[in-house]
Formats: sequence, C-alpha cells, structure tokens
Amino acid sequence: MANRHMHLGAFLMTPGHHVAAWRHEDSANDAKEWLSADYYVRLAQLAEKGLFDMVFFADHYADRTKREEDVSHSVTARLDPILLLSAMTHGTSRIGLCATASTSFYEPYYLARAFGTIDHLSHGRAAWNVVTSGNAYEALNFSRDAHYDHALRYERATESLKVAKKLWASWEEDAIVLDKKAGRFTDSSKVRTIDHEGHFFSVPGPLNIPRPVQGHPVIVQAGSSEPGKELAASSAEVIFTAWKTRKDAEVFYRDVKQRLVKYGRDANDLKVMPGVMPIIGKTEEEAKEKAAHFRSLIPEEAGLRLLSGLLNFDLTGYPLDGPLPDLPPVETNNGAKTRFELVTKLAKVENLTIRQLYQHIAGARGHREIYGTPEQIADQLQDWFENGAADGFNIMAPLLPDGLEEFITEVIPILQERGLFRTNYEGRTLRDHLGLKKPNAAEVLQR
Amino acid sequence: MANRHMHLGAFLMTPGHHVAAWRHEDSANDAKEWLSADYYVRLAQLAEKGLFDMVFFADHYADRTKREEDVSHSVTARLDPILLLSAMTHGTSRIGLCATASTSFYEPYYLARAFGTIDHLSHGRAAWNVVTSGNAYEALNFSRDAHYDHALRYERATESLKVAKKLWASWEEDAIVLDKKAGRFTDSSKVRTIDHEGHFFSVPGPLNIPRPVQGHPVIVQAGSSEPGKELAASSAEVIFTAWKTRKDAEVFYRDVKQRLVKYGRDANDLKVMPGVMPIIGKTEEEAKEKAAHFRSLIPEEAGLRLLSGLLNFDLTGYPLDGPLPDLPPVETNNGAKTRFELVTKLAKVENLTIRQLYQHIAGARGHREIYGTPEQIADQLQDWFENGAADGFNIMAPLLPDGLEEFITEVIPILQERGLFRTNYEGRTLRDHLGLKKPNAAEVLQR
Repeated sequence: MANRHMHLGAFLMTPGHHVAAWRHEDSANDAKEWLSADYYVRLAQLAEKGLFDMVFFADHYADRTKREEDVSHSVTARLDPILLLSAMTHGTSRIGLCATASTSFYEPYYLARAFGTIDHLSHGRAAWNVVTSGNAYEALNFSRDAHYDHALRYERATESLKVAKKLWASWEEDAIVLDKKAGRFTDSSKVRTIDHEGHFFSVPGPLNIPRPVQGHPVIVQAGSSEPGKELAASSAEVIFTAWKTRKDAEVFYRDVKQRLVKYGRDANDLKVMPGVMPIIGKTEEEAKEKAAHFRSLIPEEAGLRLLSGLLNFDLTGYPLDGPLPDLPPVETNNGAKTRFELVTKLAKVENLTIRQLYQHIAGARGHREIYGTPEQIADQLQDWFENGAADGFNIMAPLLPDGLEEFITEVIPILQERGLFRTNYEGRTLRDHLGLKKPNAAEVLQR
Repeated sequence: MANRHMHLGAFLMTPGHHVAAWRHEDSANDAKEWLSADYYVRLAQLAEKGLFDMVFFADHYADRTKREEDVSHSVTARLDPILLLSAMTHGTSRIGLCATASTSFYEPYYLARAFGTIDHLSHGRAAWNVVTSGNAYEALNFSRDAHYDHALRYERATESLKVAKKLWASWEEDAIVLDKKAGRFTDSSKVRTIDHEGHFFSVPGPLNIPRPVQGHPVIVQAGSSEPGKELAASSAEVIFTAWKTRKDAEVFYRDVKQRLVKYGRDANDLKVMPGVMPIIGKTEEEAKEKAAHFRSLIPEEAGLRLLSGLLNFDLTGYPLDGPLPDLPPVETNNGAKTRFELVTKLAKVENLTIRQLYQHIAGARGHREIYGTPEQIADQLQDWFENGAADGFNIMAPLLPDGLEEFITEVIPILQERGLFRTNYEGRTLRDHLGLKKPNAAEVLQR
C-alpha cells in the first residue's frame, strides 16, 4: 500500500443529518419522497459514484418519548434500515451497506440470518452496526417492563455477537457441492450445529443460509463507554464514534487501539470512524451563512427534544435561557453515557444556556460540525486523519442528497489529489475497501 | 366487474417448487445463482410481466431436524424472505410482494414495522403471510425450550396480528403536514399510542413509521386447522391452502366463507388460493414424461425427509416398501394438523407404501400437481375456479425461472382468452389487484 487511505461512510439520516433539514428550502416538499425505494437506491448509487466505503443507517424503535408534541417538530419516522440495505443491493455493485440493529430487541438467529442474507444478496458488502439501544420507550414496544441496564445490555450484546459469529461459521465455505448426478446438494459434514448455551441465549443452529461471502458481515460498534470500548476491541472491525475536539478523539483512538493487544489483534483490525457534518461554501463566509441558516431553522421544541434525548433527561419546563439544571450523576443514567459526558462537559466549559447548548449540538445531533471551503473541509479531515484521531469518517450530509453530492463533487477530488482517498475501488467486497481480513471459521467455532 | 377474474400468486421456492428441481439439467450448476439479488429481481419482473397478483415466499427458521444427513439431499438454505421482498421493490412497479413470517418468533413491533416498510418502499404492494410455525427445531434456535403448542401458537398469532394492525393505524393517513414555515412536521394529534396490554404482548406504540400506503399490508393466512380457519375468517384477506381433490377444496372453501359472516365480513373479503404445481407439455404425453423425469430425480432421503416433515414424525428406519407405521393420533401432533390428515388419508385410501407415498406427495411438497397441455392446465384451474373451490391459485413452478416463464407464455393467454384473467393491471396496489377494501384505521383502533 503506497499511501494510507481514509475510509468514508455516507451516513444517511433522511432527509439530511441536520435536525432541521426538512425545513430547508432545498428539501423535498412531500415526505413520500423519503419513503420510496428509488430514493434510497439513488443515494446508494451516489455514494458509490463518490467511491465511499459504505452507506450507514442509524436506527431506533420508538416514535417518541413521554411528550405528546415530540413528534411535531422533527422527522421521527424511520423505515427499517435492514430492509433499506436490501433495496440497495440491486442497482449497485461496490458500495458497502451498513445498518444498525439492536441486540437488546432482536434474537441472534434473526440478526445472523438477516445480515448474512444482505451479504449474499450484495456479493459481500454487508455490515452490522451492533448497538444496545439507550431509550426506555423502545424496550416498552418490545413487551419489556423496562430497559435492561447498561452493563446487562453489553453482556447481552457480547453474547449475541458471539452467537451470530458462530452461526455464520456453521456452514463451511465449500459446504454446497451441488452434485446433481449423485443427488448430493450439501456435504453435511461441513454444516455443523453450534450448540450454544449461554446466559441470554441457547441456540443449537446451524444457520439456514450458507456462509456469508465475507466470512461474516463487517462488524461495526458505536458505543464509546467502557464496556462499549471492550466490545469493540474484542469483536468489532469498525468503531463509529462522536468527538468534537481532536484532543478527545486522539485519546479515544489510542485507547481503543491499545485494547486490541490483549485480544491478539492488530491496530489495523479496527478502524476508528468519527461522525462529522460538513457545511461547504464557495467561500468561508458562504459556509458560515449556510450554517447560520440551518441553525435558524431548528424549532425550539426539536432542539430541546434532541438535547433531552442525548442526555436521557427530560428538559421540558426548564428556562431555555438559563443553565442546564443539576442532572443525576452519569452512573445512574441508563442512556448513552459517553454522549452524556460530552454534552455536560461542553455546557460547563463554555458556560452555555440550554438554548445555546442545543443550537451548538442539535444541528449535527451531537456530532462534530465543520464549515468552510472544500479545501478547508479537506484540511480538517486531514488534520484528524494524520494526527492519530481517525482512520476515516462517517460523513453526515446536512441535507440529502445535495450535501452528499457537494461533498463528492467538491471535497473528494481534493482528498484524492492529496493522496488521502482512493481513485477507484480496488476490490469487490466491503472488507476489500476497508482492508480487513476475512475471518477464519474454525477459529470462531473454537472460541 | 364484467367477469370474475382469477387471482394468481407466483410461489417462489428456489430453485423450483419440485423437491428435486436442483438436480434437473436445466437448473443452475452454481448455487450462488440463488443467493443473488439480481436473480430475485428477475423473478419478480417475470411475474409482473405475467400480470400475477403477487410473488409469494414461504419461510422456516432451522436448517435441519435431528438427522445429520437431512441437509445433504435437498436445498434447505433459505435467505430471509422479507429482505427478498425489499430487494424486489426496486425494478418493479406493480407486482404484489408477499412473504411468510412467524408470530411465534418475531415481536409484533418488528413485524408491523418491517411489512409497513415494504408497503412504503413498494408504494402499496406488501403482503404478510402470518404463520405460527410447526417445527420444534425452529423454536430451539430462538432460545425456547420447546415449541408453543398448537392452540397457544394461534392465540399468540391472533394477538400479534391485532397489535400489528393497531400499530399500522397509529398514524392517521394525513398525519404528516410538513409545514416548513411553521416548523411543524407532524400533526401530533394524528399520531397516537395504542397502549396494548395483552396476554403475550404489551406495546404502547405508536409505530415509528407513517401509515402504510394500503392502510395495512394484505394479510395472508396459511393454516387450515380449526384455529387457523378462525384466524383467517376474523383477520385475513387471503388464505393459502393445500388440497389435492376438488371435493376437499370445495368443503374448505364453503367452510371459511361461511365463517366470515359472524365477523361481519363479506365473502369477497377473503380470497381462497390453493397451491398448485403445473407440469406443462406440448402434448399430454410430454407432460407425463416431464413429471416422471422430475419424480425420478427425488433422492430417497429427500423424499423421506419431506414426508417426515409433513407428518411431523421421523420415518427413518421404516421399510420404504412397506406401509406407513401406526402414527400417534393427530390430537397429540404439534405440527401442521391439516397436512397430517391429508397425507395419512391418502396413504390409507390408495393403500400406498412409504416410497409410493413420498413419490406421490414429495414432488410438490404436499400440494396439488397437475399435468398436461396448456389447455389442459387451464381447464383444471378453471374447473376449481368455477366450481366453488378457489378464488385463484398459488402457482408453484416446478423449476425456476423456466416453469414460470412457460406458464406465462403458454397458459396465461388461454386464461385471458377465456376471460378468466386480467389483460393488464388496472390499479397500482396489491389491494387493487385482489379487489380488497382499504382498512379503516378508526375501526381497527376501536377493536
């Protein structure tokens, strides 16, 4: 490899990553647009044109929290993202396809089969972002009295992922023989039960689909808490994370890369990809104006809802122009712990009111926002990439498809000129794009 | 409506409905063919070219029963069919998309969201075949000690479907207002919790996707037992069933249509569509030879496996050229009860050995087989259709895509000439094709 290349994900939060994207004058005037297969296929084709490693979908399993008006001021509806990946397998040939799915609500047999199916349908382009979910309202929709607490969620996630990997390994790669003459479809000695008996799951297996093209789909992990980092270090291949300063990102990067050692893994076996929302202008001034325009579109209620969600604490009724109230300590918070710490720290250090805080973070939903000319955008990505803060980025276009198109047309060529990004796809699978090894089935089964 | 038209489903059991299709010389020589998105999209496009109402996928959740060699002699691998529907949404515009999914293993929130997503992506073409699953090995893969027994499975299915319908009704059709100026995305008074508290599930809702295009996806039911018929009469819109004689089919048809009355439903609200495997020849002789050729390809072990599966009783070790052993009474059998009765009755009436029995039924997996010239095929369909035995058929091509292509080219034009089948799609949604009413959300919520 001549140059180390950035890995790029196209984070697809429709109709754009900015929380007020739907109010933008360039956004569709009919929400049906975001509910059609063609829309998602076009986005995947666009990301493929831009030579991205993959598209990426978040997910959640509830429409609202306690407040009746939550649904009024932002786009809360989300089609099932695993199904969106499937729609994207047709009409594309290279782009990786990543969706979030929660181990708290789905059984590992379902998860292994679903992501294995996507990997087959796409000829080796699937990735699963393993999450444990942080919202109590989601648990209620799955007939639970309450959400599992944080530690238990991660224990369950760890076991679920272990079961899924074994299920993917339950068929050897060459198990299908298709000998028409002898009437032998499969060499049954190469299809084995896994006989998993664990704390949360018992699954005899085998899976009822052949071994996925990539051995198994690429495993992405998106929690940055202590157990999240351990899960990533032991089992994930990409870590998706949110940092607003390079210093914080560097500390995190070193931390997770060092944890790999005790699992016998190499620094290259886990790619760190923070989220970033780029707002691009022909001039710096224009970019700033664009950002200010987006900010002006955030309805108070939507800002407050998003902030409440990030903190897992309902801020309704607190004065918007006053400070954050005293919040329960992080140890007692059953939401996303790292986000909580990030946001409360920001409020304290910069002495922000609730309104200033949501304006600061709601736009990019807690992720890093960068502004500027295409060169300035490229500079900011390069800065993190070359200074031990990132192996690549999840690019969160503030408005879709425009923001993604702009990034591809304006920023990608600069990254390519600087030797920081591929000029064509060299392989066919997502593992090829990410430079990840194909997992060994025999090793998985021994664990 | 001038003529009453047949409804046709294209049942897609890859690589063909015949249990030995994969051994046929015209079948693919590489199993990868049946694992690719393009293959499934081509099948959907073919069915759409033939003006079928819908494609139809069965499903199961385990690769084998107890016997190690089960996997050797038939195609047991099955990609997740809900994901196959999603892949088919792109590249088609009229064909209905139906997949089987089990209420025994999936939560209603997941099911409602998944089939609702397909309905949006396809602009109103989704259908869900609600099953309870009959195989104990499937339950084990979902961390259960044993499968729910038959009655309990149907109670769970009934409640699951009720929850799903309420979730689909939790958004009113015009809930999204998308008022950019006022910053109002949704009229929150039109998005409501359902607050379901039942025996199996508690689900506050609302769903996190808007009301599906068809109100809700078309509900298909595939069990013909007593509780199966009740579920169909109370809640389903299509019933998929298996009968080998017109007399049995007529009795069943009258039975389910009569049951509709007590639920305040009309005979047209539920379409009865038995499965049928047509083997078509230029002459009757050629069709018979084709059928004999298919039969000669059935490996002993695959025939025995399929027969054991239909009876939910392991026949291994019994002499193939002897009679069926005494089987436990149907009341104690926790599998598909109607199939059990159908098969044991056939063995008794025709005094068949185990081998003769599996040769008789394994080919079409328990469904009706018909042979002949295109005219003779059309005659046999017309006979059932006009004599109170069926509203249409699930066409089970013995080999895919060839058998489907042949049916479309040779048989469909005859049905059209006779005024028995549409000559173009008159509507856009699957409900339009089937002549089904759009459900009323307010009524669903009151139940």
